[in-house]
Amino acid sequence: MKDMTNLDDFDVGFDIPAKPGMGEAEIQTPCLMLDLDALERNIRKMGDYAKAHGMRHRVHGKMHKSVDVAKLQIELGGACGVCCQKVSEAEVFVRAGIKDVLVSNQVRDAAKIYRLARMPKLGARVLCCVDDVANVGDLSKAAEAHGTQIECLVEIDCGAGRCGVTTTPEVVEIATAIDAAPGLRFAGIQAYQGAMQHLDAYEDRKAKIDVAVAMVKDAVEALKAEGLGCDIVGGGGTGSYYFESASGVYNELQCGSYAFMDADYGRILDEKGERIDRGEWENALFLLTSVMSHAKPDKAIVDAGLKAQSVDSGLPVVFGRDDVEYVKCSDEHGVVADPGGVLFVNDKLKLVPGHCDPTCNVHDWYVGVRGGKVEVVWPVSARGFAY
Amino acid sequence: MKDMTNLDDFDVGFDIPAKPGMGEAEIQTPCLMLDLDALERNIRKMGDYAKAHGMRHRVHGKMHKSVDVAKLQIELGGACGVCCQKVSEAEVFVRAGIKDVLVSNQVRDAAKIYRLARMPKLGARVLCCVDDVANVGDLSKAAEAHGTQIECLVEIDCGAGRCGVTTTPEVVEIATAIDAAPGLRFAGIQAYQGAMQHLDAYEDRKAKIDVAVAMVKDAVEALKAEGLGCDIVGGGGTGSYYFESASGVYNELQCGSYAFMDADYGRILDEKGERIDRGEWENALFLLTSVMSHAKPDKAIVDAGLKAQSVDSGLPVVFGRDDVEYVKCSDEHGVVADPGGVLFVNDKLKLVPGHCDPTCNVHDWYVGVRGGKVEVVWPVSARGFAY
Repeated sequence: MKDMTNLDDFDVGFDIPAKPGMGEAEIQTPCLMLDLDALERNIRKMGDYAKAHGMRHRVHGKMHKSVDVAKLQIELGGACGVCCQKVSEAEVFVRAGIKDVLVSNQVRDAAKIYRLARMPKLGARVLCCVDDVANVGDLSKAAEAHGTQIECLVEIDCGAGRCGVTTTPEVVEIATAIDAAPGLRFAGIQAYQGAMQHLDAYEDRKAKIDVAVAMVKDAVEALKAEGLGCDIVGGGGTGSYYFESASGVYNELQCGSYAFMDADYGRILDEKGERIDRGEWENALFLLTSVMSHAKPDKAIVDAGLKAQSVDSGLPVVFGRDDVEYVKCSDEHGVVADPGGVLFVNDKLKLVPGHCDPTCNVHDWYVGVRGGKVEVVWPVSARGFAY
Repeated sequence: MKDMTNLDDFDVGFDIPAKPGMGEAEIQTPCLMLDLDALERNIRKMGDYAKAHGMRHRVHGKMHKSVDVAKLQIELGGACGVCCQKVSEAEVFVRAGIKDVLVSNQVRDAAKIYRLARMPKLGARVLCCVDDVANVGDLSKAAEAHGTQIECLVEIDCGAGRCGVTTTPEVVEIATAIDAAPGLRFAGIQAYQGAMQHLDAYEDRKAKIDVAVAMVKDAVEALKAEGLGCDIVGGGGTGSYYFESASGVYNELQCGSYAFMDADYGRILDEKGERIDRGEWENALFLLTSVMSHAKPDKAIVDAGLKAQSVDSGLPVVFGRDDVEYVKCSDEHGVVADPGGVLFVNDKLKLVPGHCDPTCNVHDWYVGVRGGKVEVVWPVSARGFAY
């Protein structure tokens, strides 16, 4: 504990959790902490993989919502650009100078279509997905009115049960309409199997992707027969990218979580039956938390609750320790079982969040650490851009 | 759908979901929407209840994190001030001119203690909780160094299993230390039974509060015997305030969710066995969402997923409709079962979030609506202030 009588020791007039140069021990909690060495190794590894397998890698910006992380993925990992899920998110990436941005989602509201069609004026290639022929006319009119071009991928629902059409004739019908529409360019197919990424067993994931690959191959061949080529056949996540890379039909990966890792993804198994956070990817993202109460001997109360993370995919795991366990999460507190009474007030714990995407979404800052020192403090640039 | 060829029809250069004067149909989704009439009725009702029962009401600002809502609760509901859970949150309320702010939580980190002790200089009464005698010296030194006073409540864990001591001798020991410490004032007891608020049955909740009341009475009497009076005996939430009000020992309520309501609280039953959202409190908070895909006939995909809400206490409920049901939540999408095929793309639904506190915590704005028109757009003032 610092000497509370010496006010000159404190530099706390700020609303950020840390400043570059600070020691790790001084970071204000709860906050997101990035291990920059691990992050860079993850980014380089996926970049090398994609290159070696002749795949483009469009990194998923919806995971981190960070311009700084996306630029690192482009610079160190050779990513071709970014995908994200909301038009307002795409605007953040485009305004920051990223030149190739896919809204890997449907854009249906009039104001959102207006904003999407306006975006190429900022100097970027802008793409979106379409799963309804009724959308084509609106996108086309907006692009024409702005004097821009929107590139469109037809989205196939290859098993996730969300957006996307499920039959090849629908794909061909929508692609043909896009191809004929002024202001639009038919750019290919989006086929991300989001629902299988978290299945534990490698073979279970493979079986799901086999179905997806068959649907995509059928669609690509039917489009070819109509004279419609696919510049992009996109999909692939952290739990499946090797399947899409070997498929012979996908040419673009769109991985997100590999860069940060989380507890739920970490539990899935690779081909050899090993957890993917025990070799394939490193934990680079931590939710740093402090013990704030230990009034009961076997229970430490920490300052990271539901306002600091999402528990939709399970509770966080305390990194590097098996003597204590995060067992309960309420609005503002976490309960950490401490049967040995080894924790003390103000001790810090590094939590691996259950699910990285919605956890990053509640924070304003990433504190990037290297060698025990804060090196950077990056904003979660697109947080709050939900429209 | 607006005419996409007429660009003058659009006013979408902003990063807020709506503007005052706009029709409800033009609000950008996903976003939080407040029914201002319902909100004001809830606020007045709780204010009238507290007044009629001789209780102070310190509203829980951690629920809404909104300066504007807190001021409405003070103005219309006669609230004496605000409680909240984080020092940085308290700073937001104090800076906005709220004069009586309790951090109903432990403050242990040196920088946080520094900030807490600095806050009375902004013209507010500042209080915090203490559950460890080792905290008293640090709080005292900081208050002395700043030349301020921190008022301290001893926190009793009366069943929630988080912070707080569990025996009367501990309460007396800490209160005595506070009373003797320069710069501090012993102000009473904090005893909020957070874990029972969501028990469905009225009698189950009452049984839990009976235990809490007995603990609190014992502590208050023991303190009195030591010459230590309790200005504040605080606690009470939306699921229990009538018990604390009738206890004869509590004198301060600290309710939060009553103002907005949510699906999980709505399900609990009052004394007559009726759901509390069917008469006691109105749903004033909605998560507005739009259908963005309907490629499968029996399934509408909406734009509010895990980034727009917390599902820790269950999925949201579609307000006012029993023909459709929100059945699945992923990062960016919700799946709404639509067996009758009654929904169309761009249709809007009002969702009642499962849990209001962590749902408000992911948004930047409240869109306040009255009579079908947007009346106000309020920031979620303390969002991101997690330290």
